[in-house]
Amino acid sequence: MQVQEQKSAVGAPAGRERGNAPARLLAAASAVMIERGSTELTLKDVAARSGLNGALVKYHFGSKTGLLIALLKRDALAAVRQLNILLRQRISPTEKLKLHIAGIVNAYYRSPYLNRLIHDLLYQSSAEVGQQVSDFFVTPVVEFHRKLLQEGQRAGEFRAVDPMLFYFTLFGAIDHMFHARHTLLYGFQVPEVTQAMCDDLIGFVTDMALGAVLAEPG
Amino acid sequence: MQVQEQKSAVGAPAGRERGNAPARLLAAASAVMIERGSTELTLKDVAARSGLNGALVKYHFGSKTGLLIALLKRDALAAVRQLNILLRQRISPTEKLKLHIAGIVNAYYRSPYLNRLIHDLLYQSSAEVGQQVSDFFVTPVVEFHRKLLQEGQRAGEFRAVDPMLFYFTLFGAIDHMFHARHTLLYGFQVPEVTQAMCDDLIGFVTDMALGAVLAEPG
Repeated sequence: MQVQEQKSAVGAPAGRERGNAPARLLAAASAVMIERGSTELTLKDVAARSGLNGALVKYHFGSKTGLLIALLKRDALAAVRQLNILLRQRISPTEKLKLHIAGIVNAYYRSPYLNRLIHDLLYQSSAEVGQQVSDFFVTPVVEFHRKLLQEGQRAGEFRAVDPMLFYFTLFGAIDHMFHARHTLLYGFQVPEVTQAMCDDLIGFVTDMALGAVLAEPG
Repeated sequence: MQVQEQKSAVGAPAGRERGNAPARLLAAASAVMIERGSTELTLKDVAARSGLNGALVKYHFGSKTGLLIALLKRDALAAVRQLNILLRQRISPTEKLKLHIAGIVNAYYRSPYLNRLIHDLLYQSSAEVGQQVSDFFVTPVVEFHRKLLQEGQRAGEFRAVDPMLFYFTLFGAIDHMFHARHTLLYGFQVPEVTQAMCDDLIGFVTDMALGAVLAEPG
């Protein structure tokens, strides 16, 4: 493995670049969408930013939708790794829940395209794309919630909670401020979500979640 | 006023029908969407269901989008009337909050197109439509929340709560189960929202909301 790496590094820079192309195209798409604060994106934008030929998008991902699905998958896999690390930490289930909420809010704040992509691909798309995105994005998160809720109940910290209700209400409560841009602007005269609003949201949603999951005293 | 009504009732049934046409077209659009569980709708559907000429949609509403906006406005005005009645009832702010949550969940359950229309018109539409819908839908609800939260704080039942955070998290927590159909199906193998799920959602979101707004003891 090491030998092969050295070989290509020495003998074939072009080949090495091609090998990195999918990751570079995803990084370029991500960077452009973060800069623009929008998921409006052309293959030309991705080509220009990555320094690679736009035809490589079609070659590696089939289409722009394929590229966006792959990008969401990349980010989802990283998030799921974090959730698994969180689950193994030696802190209380309540502390894990707090970190989980802060993690989602901060991820949406750092990468606003994430929220938009999830909506476009999971809710506005065909059933086929919806199923695919659900498989790599929703299912692992639901599995994490199930384990966290069980752990909290075993520890005597949480009451019995339906993971489905928990999933929809927690994500919905966090999601809406990022998604409902017209409402933010026209309902509240706020042009965009700020770091301070995120901090407030984390505190508020944490209080909400604890209100619905903490074991009732007595 | 009464005389005029009698006149048209006696002398001009066609004129009377034309006078009712906007309401009949809206009722027809609503009925078709409830039956289908979808906001897919053609002007032909509306014409067939209402027994009126499809051209009347263009005449009264300008376009299909205009008809859908008018329908959401009709439903929003009815909802806002309910909120104002709720605000005047002689019950505690906590009880009003509980009834408000049950009211939103039941409205989404009875008229599934409501949730979909709000998403299509408020989030997926142009800024112009977004502003219009925000004006008749979001602003009055935010005003209701502001008054309810103030009343709760004055009564010593609620802590100080930011109405913006309250609006986004409460609506988001309720909205998501109705909106995220792919997630419901592929993530949880549940084909559609049932009355029992609504009852559970009302209970869970009530616990969430109370966790974030009730005055902390001591």
